[in-house]
Amino acid sequence: MLKAVEWKQKKLFVIDQTKLPGSMLKIQLRTVAQVMDAIQQRKVRGSSLLGSIAAFAVYLAVKQTPLAKNFEDLLKDVEKVSTRILKLQPISMDIEWALAGMKHCVLNHRDYKLSTLRDIILREAVNILKAYEAAGKTMVENSLELIRDGDCVLTYGNAGALSAPGSGSALGIIIQAAAKKNISVIVPETRPLMEGARLTAVELKHAKIPFQLIADNASASLMKEGIINIVMIGARRIAMNGDIAATIGTYGLAMQAYQHRIPVYVAAPASTFDCALISGESIAMEKRKTDELLKWNNKPISIPGVKALNPAFDLTPHKYISALITDLGIIRAPYDQNLKNLFLNH
Amino acid sequence: MLKAVEWKQKKLFVIDQTKLPGSMLKIQLRTVAQVMDAIQQRKVRGSSLLGSIAAFAVYLAVKQTPLAKNFEDLLKDVEKVSTRILKLQPISMDIEWALAGMKHCVLNHRDYKLSTLRDIILREAVNILKAYEAAGKTMVENSLELIRDGDCVLTYGNAGALSAPGSGSALGIIIQAAAKKNISVIVPETRPLMEGARLTAVELKHAKIPFQLIADNASASLMKEGIINIVMIGARRIAMNGDIAATIGTYGLAMQAYQHRIPVYVAAPASTFDCALISGESIAMEKRKTDELLKWNNKPISIPGVKALNPAFDLTPHKYISALITDLGIIRAPYDQNLKNLFLNH
Repeated sequence: MLKAVEWKQKKLFVIDQTKLPGSMLKIQLRTVAQVMDAIQQRKVRGSSLLGSIAAFAVYLAVKQTPLAKNFEDLLKDVEKVSTRILKLQPISMDIEWALAGMKHCVLNHRDYKLSTLRDIILREAVNILKAYEAAGKTMVENSLELIRDGDCVLTYGNAGALSAPGSGSALGIIIQAAAKKNISVIVPETRPLMEGARLTAVELKHAKIPFQLIADNASASLMKEGIINIVMIGARRIAMNGDIAATIGTYGLAMQAYQHRIPVYVAAPASTFDCALISGESIAMEKRKTDELLKWNNKPISIPGVKALNPAFDLTPHKYISALITDLGIIRAPYDQNLKNLFLNH
Repeated sequence: MLKAVEWKQKKLFVIDQTKLPGSMLKIQLRTVAQVMDAIQQRKVRGSSLLGSIAAFAVYLAVKQTPLAKNFEDLLKDVEKVSTRILKLQPISMDIEWALAGMKHCVLNHRDYKLSTLRDIILREAVNILKAYEAAGKTMVENSLELIRDGDCVLTYGNAGALSAPGSGSALGIIIQAAAKKNISVIVPETRPLMEGARLTAVELKHAKIPFQLIADNASASLMKEGIINIVMIGARRIAMNGDIAATIGTYGLAMQAYQHRIPVYVAAPASTFDCALISGESIAMEKRKTDELLKWNNKPISIPGVKALNPAFDLTPHKYISALITDLGIIRAPYDQNLKNLFLNH
């Protein structure tokens, strides 16, 4: 399996995903500044991957010189790095979750020696990474039944090993299913950043699973022809009513699937659920610089001076979602009730 | 206005649209072979433009050496070129319509001297071109009421002056509306051939009308936000129940608009209506070579050896269409009844 993030010999490595599919370049992130740059430049993306890296950023912050002289200073360093990283991609719930976990850990160990506390912080970041790996495995186990022999699964964007520590969510499930069952896979290219054509394609090839690429706008027609019979995707943030914020295009895709009575499964670890969010309607959707859309391989796709709108995410109402696959189990409608029960019990 | 096709000084000129938006290259089509190559290479596209050029191809066929010695031989030449051109893009109704018109003209003038008949054939091709120009104007007049001050219109693909002799259909209407009213325009790039980003963008810039480009998959989200309130598009073939075959992605787009209660207007001249076709369900949808999708500016968008599906058109059921704008008037549901009445009366 590809490893989007690795902690090895006390160093943090990630794959620079802007270089894919051309080359698989591993880069080391040594400082908070480098982590922030990697997130801003989209070298790393995917809610779980960002969550994991945010946790390591806290460690990098507290081991950077000048070292904090007392607990309060260290806590300030933790809070400062958290604030800065949260601003980079507010939509990704996993960043919040991981940073909250790191702060919790720091507060829980305030009586330790600072040097020991730094080691504890590192251990917590490693634990978060391992928790994501375990969540990926459990999501696969929980969803084995959903994909059957002969199914044709469409997965959008990239929700695999390049989006998380471990096997990821939707694509991790598909890859495991394909190893055991005879399924076919359809991958929309996913404009503008081409996560489907660039990243999911690389993962499927790496796993030796055949697939077919399509333009994003071909999905409805292929659904109507009966070619696609499952949609399996990831999410950036999930509200307590089952609404999801995800890669731009997910909303239209889910609506199309719903109209064709094709199930839409959203796979995400518990860390992607925003327990404070009753409905997804209030999530602010990030708009990105239009160059992402207007240039491909540094060449303009249109005329000089053209204006554009480039929303990076959209909101899919829960009514279009057939089930949420989590590491805590599979959740179906009524989501508000079932998610409440799920998170109250954990 | 841009002229996608011109008959000037006894020569047929078209714009090589594969060179847009980079350069506005006019090329002369001297032979049937050059016409066929231009269609196959997508140098020309759009149902009305293809219809017009098909008519001229008939003229080019009968004036090519060796010249037919008698009427039967000339008729055979006409039938041969028609058969060959019809195969190039069977979905475009206008090709059928124009070629049927040309054959009708030939049969109606069988008693003329062959040299005179050749002139009559040329005159008929010119008449068809002029008929398209007139149809464009009438569609604009017929639809003036549909776009109001403050509207935000989304148009997909390219259905303007680059798709027809004259001002075209959907985009022609938008450009005229924008000259008189304060409207905004949204243009999805239209993968894989980028007719939105490459062609519609050029037309709007040429007409000095501001617009915003979006990724195809951003439309649903912008509809939900209330930004888009009209969808105005063209078609390749329209069945007698109002089903339309159009650029791939039209189906999903129309479905999204319908769900958001946004009107979808389809503009097309009478020549795009297939009076023999009760429903669109039986239209065979052309699949094109996957390189159109897999390469952009000759650079691969994904990994080597990747497979793809590249449907070029899709079918939009009439239930998603709010009105058909034609040069014969505006038609609304029930389409089967109203279209029957329309075409029986003309």
